[in-house]
Amino acid sequence: MGKNLTSREQDYSKWYNELVVKADLAENSAVRGCMVIKPYGYAIWEKMQAELDRMFKETGHQNAYFPLFVPKSLFEAEEKNAEGFAKECAVVTHYRLKTDEENKGKLIVDPAAKLEEELVVRPTSEAVIWNTYKNWIQSYRDLPILINQWANVVRWEMRTRLFLRTSEFLWQEGHTAHATRQEALAETKQMNDIYAEFVENFMATPVIKGAKTENERFAGAEETYCIEALMQDGKALQAGTSHFLGQNFAKAFDVKFATKEGGLEHVWATSWGVSTRLMGALVMTHSDDKGLVLPPKLAPIQVVIVPIYKSEEQLDQISEVANGLVKDLRAKGLSVKFDNRDTQKPGWKFAQYELQGVPVRLAIGPKDIEKGTVELARRDTLTKEFVAMDAVVEKVAALMEEIQDALYDKAKNYRDEHITKVESFDEFKEVLKKKGGFISAHWDGTPETENKIKELTKATIRCVPFDRKEEGGACVLTGKPSMGRVLFAKAY
Amino acid sequence: MGKNLTSREQDYSKWYNELVVKADLAENSAVRGCMVIKPYGYAIWEKMQAELDRMFKETGHQNAYFPLFVPKSLFEAEEKNAEGFAKECAVVTHYRLKTDEENKGKLIVDPAAKLEEELVVRPTSEAVIWNTYKNWIQSYRDLPILINQWANVVRWEMRTRLFLRTSEFLWQEGHTAHATRQEALAETKQMNDIYAEFVENFMATPVIKGAKTENERFAGAEETYCIEALMQDGKALQAGTSHFLGQNFAKAFDVKFATKEGGLEHVWATSWGVSTRLMGALVMTHSDDKGLVLPPKLAPIQVVIVPIYKSEEQLDQISEVANGLVKDLRAKGLSVKFDNRDTQKPGWKFAQYELQGVPVRLAIGPKDIEKGTVELARRDTLTKEFVAMDAVVEKVAALMEEIQDALYDKAKNYRDEHITKVESFDEFKEVLKKKGGFISAHWDGTPETENKIKELTKATIRCVPFDRKEEGGACVLTGKPSMGRVLFAKAY
Repeated sequence: MGKNLTSREQDYSKWYNELVVKADLAENSAVRGCMVIKPYGYAIWEKMQAELDRMFKETGHQNAYFPLFVPKSLFEAEEKNAEGFAKECAVVTHYRLKTDEENKGKLIVDPAAKLEEELVVRPTSEAVIWNTYKNWIQSYRDLPILINQWANVVRWEMRTRLFLRTSEFLWQEGHTAHATRQEALAETKQMNDIYAEFVENFMATPVIKGAKTENERFAGAEETYCIEALMQDGKALQAGTSHFLGQNFAKAFDVKFATKEGGLEHVWATSWGVSTRLMGALVMTHSDDKGLVLPPKLAPIQVVIVPIYKSEEQLDQISEVANGLVKDLRAKGLSVKFDNRDTQKPGWKFAQYELQGVPVRLAIGPKDIEKGTVELARRDTLTKEFVAMDAVVEKVAALMEEIQDALYDKAKNYRDEHITKVESFDEFKEVLKKKGGFISAHWDGTPETENKIKELTKATIRCVPFDRKEEGGACVLTGKPSMGRVLFAKAY
Repeated sequence: MGKNLTSREQDYSKWYNELVVKADLAENSAVRGCMVIKPYGYAIWEKMQAELDRMFKETGHQNAYFPLFVPKSLFEAEEKNAEGFAKECAVVTHYRLKTDEENKGKLIVDPAAKLEEELVVRPTSEAVIWNTYKNWIQSYRDLPILINQWANVVRWEMRTRLFLRTSEFLWQEGHTAHATRQEALAETKQMNDIYAEFVENFMATPVIKGAKTENERFAGAEETYCIEALMQDGKALQAGTSHFLGQNFAKAFDVKFATKEGGLEHVWATSWGVSTRLMGALVMTHSDDKGLVLPPKLAPIQVVIVPIYKSEEQLDQISEVANGLVKDLRAKGLSVKFDNRDTQKPGWKFAQYELQGVPVRLAIGPKDIEKGTVELARRDTLTKEFVAMDAVVEKVAALMEEIQDALYDKAKNYRDEHITKVESFDEFKEVLKKKGGFISAHWDGTPETENKIKELTKATIRCVPFDRKEEGGACVLTGKPSMGRVLFAKAY
């Protein structure tokens, strides 16, 4: 069957790579760094999309669609943004292939079809969107603009990993325009909060909300807020970011509006995004050496029923009971699969659904029919119990919430245990090496110190937590004064 | 206000272009041939997506995602397909920009970052998908594969029009793999039927189902089935296609499976797609000189309520009534907007919602409050009536179906009146010139005759209708024998 995974302890990175492929989430494609998201993986992504989309719409955002390509002249209009992305751009230079006369049948790029201006495949859409907003915004009456886009983007990464870092990925990018700085800042905050709410409530993954340091900010942003999660190997993962762009893009694209008071001012901007990277975070937060562990709220199949039988007659009896359960469980809003394939044995199915992280498995055999019971197996705890047939629907429905909460609690306990306060750089290095996780330390506030620490330890400042206490201290590296702790970690 | 449209009679093409922009559906972008789909247009597309996606899933299909890029060597593996799309490919040749030292601050393509193999931006995904299926299919147990993808594709068109023909467009593309020819053919037929059902029931646009001639087939297909609609200017529009690909892609990518009987055979394939082009069809089927007319099932706003007031006190009274209506209409599952903005006058709002095709408008003024009435205006017929307040919810709910049906009937009557049987080529040309629409004529079955007719008249064979009668006759151009009529038309 080839389902045996490398264990996390053996090689966490290998465990992840194997799991993503074996659980049918995604695989590498023939295109360098680009992945194929397989149906089972895509079904999880669709559930994520549906919830996020609902949350965006409930806060007044609308979806729209902007071009895949950014003409080079637009791309470079906002200098910092261009500088930040120039090194990883896929560039379209031609618009036609032709048959190579010297090499019959082979196609080559047609040199006569060279574009006058090269097109960058969007690594992010601020440029093309702000160039559009210029025509949409004249007066304060046109504001705010609250738009989101679901799209693919391309960033030419040299070292890629399924979901975590791919040359093409899927994401949503919100781009809003506001009349005032305060309003734009409030939007930036709101969307970061929505991301936190989604990741905590649906992915059952606890996050820390905070602001990025200057070094880690989005290219072209004045502030980047983020949510940071912790994976089981003690490395942090940035799960979402929300940027306050100030007036940078409005200035680069000359977007001004007539104020209520009769003035003319540049517009304030935000942008915010989460991507298929969340799939990687989901896998790494909960899964174990047997495979995926999915929170019920995002599981494409929440309950699977496996019949155990030797004769057709037994299967008929079991099917009758199982079909009744399917109906009753669906009536509770649950997504249920009755796997009555005769091409695979029960043991194979058990391993498969374990690997794919189905939260609850019900097995029904001839003895269960006699006794009026069902064997219920819980994926997160790997525990089994027999449940009376007439109690199983209620039990399973209740379990969905219980499992969702248990996964969150487990992840939160792990995360909380892995936030370590340190007072010296030696301690910093030791904790980083032996325990990992977030290191809460004083920092003198300079990019130089941050860079030096990164150089020495590979740890970066994940965020300045919003809820940090004001607390005088000495920088863990330089000893210079600090006003509060920030969180360091090695990160994905 | 700038809302006055060119009339259809004046200039149909101009009317369409203006309408799409003024009704806030889409606009041209800074990127040649690529459009921006604005929130109102995108909301309609989302409704289309939701219905189609549901229909695909109900017939056992799953969504997945494949790479945007196709390496040139894969792209050219299936020769006919490659030949068909080579002339309109956007090609990525480089993966980095750099600062031009001789022209400080400007970015140029970095010659050191040339790709070893060029990447084609997908014009369609058969190549990249069949290269993937190769690894997914070993045995009959792995079949069928029933996958759909929602994606953007790029075909470098020289003459573009919003929605109808754009260099980048959004679409879905189904790609299925089967063990037998019959099964693949049945799938091809099923998906064409699903498209017909969607376009007729949701877009209220009647279609003719049929097969394409060899000339008009998808590059690489053995059969292309299609649904053809008729626009108000007498031109046909291909609204969806479903292709039977035979074993062409399986052979090009060497995809074989072990049969139940122990043999080894090439897999049978289908692909099928509809795109944002449907938005163009929707606009052109129903709209009038006042603006869009949307079928209720796809209208982002089905009912708008406009208050008519002079004082704040009146507005308060009206709002109380309106909010009650909003609640009751929403309880009926309707999408309702109460437009109480004080920045725009009622007349402006009336024109705006007419332009945007909101099916039903309710206006409430102080006199209505006194009398217990509401003014109800119907967009499709441009008729108005007063309705008793306590009857309005039922009335509006019933109207949704009535309007949906009326739009379909109107379009069907127009379409049926514009199918003309002709017996001579003179008649053919005259009908085409004076009346337009579908011309039902005998054809000798050769590509040469089809090409000649196209050359002489610009009309092409839209399809060989599935329901055509067997009827001996003489080709309208050559006089050679024909077994039945086919439908010609000028087309978008």
